[in-house]
Order: sequence, then C-alpha cells, then structure tokens
Amino acid sequence: MAEPTVLATDPSPGVRLLTMNRPEKRNAFDHRLYCDLRDALRAARGDDDVHVVVLTGAGRGFSAGQDFAEMSAPPDGEPHGFPSFLDTLCEFDKPLLAAVNGAGSGLGLTMLLHCDVVYMAESARLRCPFVTLGVVPEAASSFLLPLVVGFQRAAEILYTAEWIDSARAVELGLARLRLPDAELLPATLARAAEIAAHPPRAVRHTKQLLLATRADAVRAARAREDAAFAERLGSPENVEAITAFFEKRAPDFSRTR
Amino acid sequence: MAEPTVLATDPSPGVRLLTMNRPEKRNAFDHRLYCDLRDALRAARGDDDVHVVVLTGAGRGFSAGQDFAEMSAPPDGEPHGFPSFLDTLCEFDKPLLAAVNGAGSGLGLTMLLHCDVVYMAESARLRCPFVTLGVVPEAASSFLLPLVVGFQRAAEILYTAEWIDSARAVELGLARLRLPDAELLPATLARAAEIAAHPPRAVRHTKQLLLATRADAVRAARAREDAAFAERLGSPENVEAITAFFEKRAPDFSRTR
Amino acid sequence: MAEPTVLATDPSPGVRLLTMNRPEKRNAFDHRLYCDLRDALRAARGDDDVHVVVLTGAGRGFSAGQDFAEMSAPPDGEPHGFPSFLDTLCEFDKPLLAAVNGAGSGLGLTMLLHCDVVYMAESARLRCPFVTLGVVPEAASSFLLPLVVGFQRAAEILYTAEWIDSARAVELGLARLRLPDAELLPATLARAAEIAAHPPRAVRHTKQLLLATRADAVRAARAREDAAFAERLGSPENVEAITAFFEKRAPDFSRTR
Repeated sequence: MAEPTVLATDPSPGVRLLTMNRPEKRNAFDHRLYCDLRDALRAARGDDDVHVVVLTGAGRGFSAGQDFAEMSAPPDGEPHGFPSFLDTLCEFDKPLLAAVNGAGSGLGLTMLLHCDVVYMAESARLRCPFVTLGVVPEAASSFLLPLVVGFQRAAEILYTAEWIDSARAVELGLARLRLPDAELLPATLARAAEIAAHPPRAVRHTKQLLLATRADAVRAARAREDAAFAERLGSPENVEAITAFFEKRAPDFSRTR
Repeated sequence: MAEPTVLATDPSPGVRLLTMNRPEKRNAFDHRLYCDLRDALRAARGDDDVHVVVLTGAGRGFSAGQDFAEMSAPPDGEPHGFPSFLDTLCEFDKPLLAAVNGAGSGLGLTMLLHCDVVYMAESARLRCPFVTLGVVPEAASSFLLPLVVGFQRAAEILYTAEWIDSARAVELGLARLRLPDAELLPATLARAAEIAAHPPRAVRHTKQLLLATRADAVRAARAREDAAFAERLGSPENVEAITAFFEKRAPDFSRTR
Repeated sequence: MAEPTVLATDPSPGVRLLTMNRPEKRNAFDHRLYCDLRDALRAARGDDDVHVVVLTGAGRGFSAGQDFAEMSAPPDGEPHGFPSFLDTLCEFDKPLLAAVNGAGSGLGLTMLLHCDVVYMAESARLRCPFVTLGVVPEAASSFLLPLVVGFQRAAEILYTAEWIDSARAVELGLARLRLPDAELLPATLARAAEIAAHPPRAVRHTKQLLLATRADAVRAARAREDAAFAERLGSPENVEAITAFFEKRAPDFSRTR
C-alpha cells in the first residue's frame, strides 16, 4: 500500500489539518494528489464537526504545483483530477487557512488565492512560473491575483516569474503574517481554533456570502484560462521550455514547477 | 417632545453636519434613528446649497449598530426604517465624510464602507460582531469589505469579530486618517469645506460615476445578505446568543453591537 | 515638415520606446498626438518583433492631458482621435510600461491606469483636475482609479484635484517605483528588457487574460463617462472654468491640464 498523499488529523475541536504528503516531490500535484486533496476537502465540508480547515505541506516545500516529471495519467476512463480539485477548492465554504511551510510555485501560489487566511514561514517563497513554461495562469489567478495584489503588481509577478519572499508576500497581501518556521504551524492552528470557536453556521454562511460576490468572475476567468492553456500547450514556446527542462533535469526542478 | 435623534447644522458654506444623537445608547439604531437619518440624508441630497455631508456621533460612541435592547417597532402599517435607510445611504450622490468619534460596531462599521472619506479619532475602534450573534454581514459589506481591505483581511475581520483600533483601520484602508480626538471634527469639517469649494455639479456627477461602477454588485450583495439574514434569524445559534445577551445584560452591550 | 509628435525607437531586442514629443506643450494631447500615439501603439501591436512597449514624455512633462489651448480640430470628415486612441490603449495586449518623467495631469494620469508597470521620476507628480474644469473623469478612471487606489482614496483624488507626488503615487499603487530622475528611463528600459526576454506569446496571452477580467467594466465605465462628459461640457461650471483659464492665460496652464 502506497503512503497516503494527504494526511488528515483533527488537532483541536472543529479544526481539520490537511497535509500534502509528497515531500520527495515538494508536494507537486500528480493526478493522485489532485484526487486525494479534493476528496479530503469534500470530506471536511461534509463533516459537521469540522468548522475550519488548515492546509500545509510535508517536508521542505509547500507545493511545487503541477508535477511535470511524473505525469501520472488517470486510469482508463477516469477524468483528470485537476478540474474537479479546483471546483472543490473554489466552492469550499468553510474557513480555509494555509500554513505555507516552504516554496509554493504555480498552483502552490494560486491555490492560496482561494484561502481565507495565509500564514507563511519566514523561509518560504512563492512564484508564478507560467510564462517561462510557455503557458498561462490558472485557478482563476488571472482574476484573483490582480484583485489581491493590484493590477500592476500582478502583471509584474506574472510577466517576470520572479520569486516572492515571505516579507514581500505579506506586503503584497498574498499572506497575512510571516512567522519563524518553527512557529508557523502552531500559530496557524491557534488561529484556526479561534475561528472554530465561533458559531459555525454563521461563519459558514458568512463565507458563502464572501464567495458569492466573486463566484461568477472566478468561473469566467477559469473558462478563459482553460481555453488559453489548451492553445498554449504544445505551442513552440511550451515544447521548447519542457524539452529544455527534461534535457537539463534540473535538480531543483520541483521548485521551478 | 423627544430629543431629536439626528442633529443637523451647516457649519460652513455647502457643508451639512449630521450628528447621530442617542448618546446614552452609543447611537445604536432603533427604528426612529433609521428613519431620521434617512430623512436627513434625503433632505441634504435635495438641497442645492448642500454640497458635502459629514456624519458623526454624539457622546462617546460613533454607532453601536442595531439596537437590540430597544427593538422599537414601527407604528402599525409603517415599514421598518432599515431597508430604506440603506437604500438612501447606498445611493447618496454627494460626497459623504465620516468623523468616527468613538466605537463603531456592526452597522457602525459597515456604513463607513459607503462613505467617501473617513477620519477617525485615535481612541475610536471598529468591529463586525455578526458571527458572535449567529447572523451574517449586512449593508453590502460582504462585497464592500473585501473590496476595501482585501479578501483575506475581510475574512479575518468577519470570522473573528475582533476589534480594529484606529491605527489598524488606517492601515487597512477603512479610514483615511487618524487624529487626536479633539482635532477630529475640526479636521473633517475643514476637509469637507475644501471639497465643497469645488464646482458642486461636477463633483456630484463624479460621485455618481463612482457609485455606478459598483451599484449592481451592491444591490446583489444586499439581496444575498437579506436572504441569509432571514435564514439565520431565530436559528439556534442566534437564539442562544441573544438569550445570553439579555441574561447577562452586559453593561457594555452597545459596544458589542 | 512638422516635428513628429511621437518618436519611436527600439533600444533593445523586443522593446519599443514611444516618446510623446510636444515638449513645449508638456505633451498635451491635441488631435494629432491622439492619432499619432494611437497609430504607434497599433504598429507596435502588429509587429511580432516588439514584445514590450515603454511610454515616456519628451522634455519636462509626462503629459498635460487634453490640450485646451490648441484645440486642433480634425480635418473635415475625420473623427476626433480621442476615442480611437482610448480604444487602442484599453485593448493593448502586450506589456505596456510607463516612465513618468514629469507632471501627468488628466489623461496624463488616467492613461497610467492602463499600463502594466509604472516607474516614476522622483520629481514627477500626478493630478486629476476634472472637477476644477467642471467636467468628470475619463478613460474608465471612474472604475480603474478606485480599483487601483481604493474607493476612499479615489474619491479624495477626484473631489479635491490635489497634486500627488511620486512618493505618494507609489504608496497608493499608482506607480510601482520612484527613481532619481536620471535613472528613470534606463531602469524602465531594463525592466522592459527583462520582460521581453520571456516567451512573448505566453506573456501576451497572459496580458489578454488580465485585460479580459475587466474589459466589460472598462467599456461600461467609458460609456457612462462619455455621457456625463457630454452633459458637463458647456455647463455653467465648465464655461466659467474655461473662461477663467483663457482670461488668466496662466503660464503653468499645461500643468493644470
């Protein structure tokens, strides 16, 4: 039996901790991780004893985004886990906190745009490497990133693919707080426990109202992104970037997504 | 004859000052205050000699929001003042400044999201206590609060119901400036006078353009909030919170909304 | 043959520099500058060797906005250059950087809301003087200015027509960086070169996605602004402001728009 790709525990009443668990791949997403994290979120949503969810990563990284090195295809007839994972994330209607323990790249950054409160380890950093791979942003980030950090800063982040350290992430509003690495998870869990202590149905209803204000725009952005991504995939720029990647077999690949 | 719940004066040419005047209730809104402030705003809107309006509160508080202790019902056949007050506030098309002289809770915070310039006394503070009462945000704040302070910070403010002091309010963009308590009103009136000195029809047309960019979203958010509020009212969480309140008869009730 | 109103050069691979060239008018827009800058942007958009465009101004100013002093009308039958210039600017789908070398007033500020990255000389400053002229904002700024700087700060900028210095512009998010005057253009061109080095089709597709998230709102805002402007033009407030301007022949006119 393989190691589970998502670890679920309940560290305090009302709080569910989900840990992405592919540390040797810096928690890059293959088909199985998409499906397992999607299912873990669905289980948390359906469980009345879970009021708040905290996401983190095992090992040194938070998430390296899409795993190119191991393009594990779905079994015959099964749809890929990516779209249904995103649907579940976009519609998750209980407070979702993130403890960003290490590098987040691609989806490892854009998934944070769907979290309510993001705490970040001082050593962690974030990046949107889409253009360097000849592709485009995903997860509604073409809409949500400008909303969170402003149009100019979103444009710069997306056009340059530069790394964003934790101090800059807080300044930009991508994260709420940065903490010494050892204090990250305890602090995030403590915040989660505070929120979980409030009337859970009123909190959930409040989050539903917050999501409703942007649901249509998120849906429209994802549709545009999916169409653009399909057009970019296999384009000369994309083929060249992927070829260069595999030729180089860069040891830090999982950090550049 | 009862003391008026709204005091109206014209301290300088073109400037109308409206003071919420239930200081013993920290300017909590009962039916009468809703109606009187609505009527005062309508009168200011219809008066060509009024170019700018400044809102403040009498006594120690700005506004404690909905008054639970004195649920003064409308006379027979008269609709409650809350929705028509909000309509008037959302559509107010002359510059509206706020001098936040003390605590603003619930509507005492969310009404600021409809003001153009907010100045705040150093000792003042703000809070969204909705979840602690088992209910949800109102006054389009599920849309406007994320717009003003960002999604993550709005989520935290709404989920935790924490007090926001004046320094943090400025940092978040809820207020433009904080001032020593004694300088608050003079400074706000001076700013109002500067704006009132510009061509008033062009200024009013400018505000109409600013409101138009968000009018549909404000309307949609209010409709969703009203539906959610109706569902929450009388729910076990809400009944428990209200019961606890009246059993405790907390002396600082009006500050927790 | 007249001096060209727009100078175009390619200082490094993939980078096109466009310099507004009416220095004696502080690059105020007459019909010809609208048309020439529009055509230069269209040429840059259509040229596959151009990946990034940088806008700047010749002489001491960036742009004084609409030129009232020289209301050069289009030749018979030719439509005015303003709307088609704005169409081109709003839809420009390659990264557009601005090097704000001096004062930007009216359109000299609002055109920056359509740029991806704005660098500003320390001595430069910006202003929205619309209300002082009895008119209203343009170029979708009634939507984009609140989006960039927040509703309260946009209201204050538009109602008071105050000058914004470069430090405040960075604080507000109108500009990304301020630089010593002599370093402005080299720094902006260096940033442009960095962006131009990334796969250009992926970058362009990314910008198309960013523009798509706001295209409808930009179009709607422009329609409302155009209607409001038509109503304000020739109004008593507008006539009085323009008359005062020409009677005074203020030597610094081009800086007040």
